[in-house]
Amino acid sequence: MQLSRKADYALRAVRHLSIIPKGKLGSINSIAAAESIPREFLAKILKDLTRAGILVSFQGVTGGYRLARTPREISFLDVIEAIEGPIHINLCTEGNSCSCDQVNNCPMHTFWVTQEKSFKRSLSKHSFGRYRRATK
Amino acid sequence: MQLSRKADYALRAVRHLSIIPKGKLGSINSIAAAESIPREFLAKILKDLTRAGILVSFQGVTGGYRLARTPREISFLDVIEAIEGPIHINLCTEGNSCSCDQVNNCPMHTFWVTQEKSFKRSLSKHSFGRYRRATK
Repeated sequence: MQLSRKADYALRAVRHLSIIPKGKLGSINSIAAAESIPREFLAKILKDLTRAGILVSFQGVTGGYRLARTPREISFLDVIEAIEGPIHINLCTEGNSCSCDQVNNCPMHTFWVTQEKSFKRSLSKHSFGRYRRATK
Repeated sequence: MQLSRKADYALRAVRHLSIIPKGKLGSINSIAAAESIPREFLAKILKDLTRAGILVSFQGVTGGYRLARTPREISFLDVIEAIEGPIHINLCTEGNSCSCDQVNNCPMHTFWVTQEKSFKRSLSKHSFGRYRRATK
C-alpha cells in the first residue's frame, strides 16, 4: 500500500517545473539531474503527464516542458491519477471488482469508501502552488 | 496505491472470527467458504496472523482458529501490518530509502509524513469490536 516510484517521480518532476521562472522550459536532462530520476524513465513519465494535459511539451534543440496550468491549479491527485489511474485504496471501492460479492452488505465497505474519500480530498487540496512560494 | 488482496482477505478472516460465538473455533474451510477466499491462500494468511499474535491456532480434527484478544483489541492496522509489514505510503517515509537524497530538505516529505500518520491513526482506531455488535 504505497505510492509507486513512478508517481513519486512524476510529483517531483511537476514540482521542479513549478519552481522554474515563468516562460522558461525545463529539459529532461535538467529535471533528471535535479531530481535524481533515471532519464529514460523520466521521458516516459513526462509523456504521460503531457498526454494527461498537465504538461505542455515543445520539440527541438531548445525544447522542453512547462506546466499546462499554474502550479496552484495542479494538485497531487491530478498527477498521481495521471500516472496510476483512479485511486482505489481497496479492491472493493473499484466498483464491481470486490472479491467477496457482498459489497452492498459488507460491513467493512463503508470504512474503505470513507478512507478513500478522505485521502483523495487531501491529495486534491494539495497543489503545487505552495512549493512555488516556498522554494523561491 | 492499494491494499493488497492478501491483507484484504486477512481483514475478512479476522472479522469472521470476531463474530463467531465465544469459545468456538473457526475452521479454515468455514472461513474460506463464508468469505470466498481460496483455501490454500487462506492457510498462509492464518499462519501469518498466528505468528503475529493476532490468532491462536488449535491442531487436530476439531481444531481451528480463534482471536488471541477480544475483537475490540484488534485494529485494522494490526492486521494489515501483520500481513504487509509497516505501512509507508511513500518511499520517503521509510527512513533512508528516499530516492531523492534530500529527505531533510524535501518540501514534499512533510506532506507524506502527515498523510501517513493520519491514515495509520484511522486504521488503528478502527477495531473489530464494532463488527461483533453490528452483525449479531
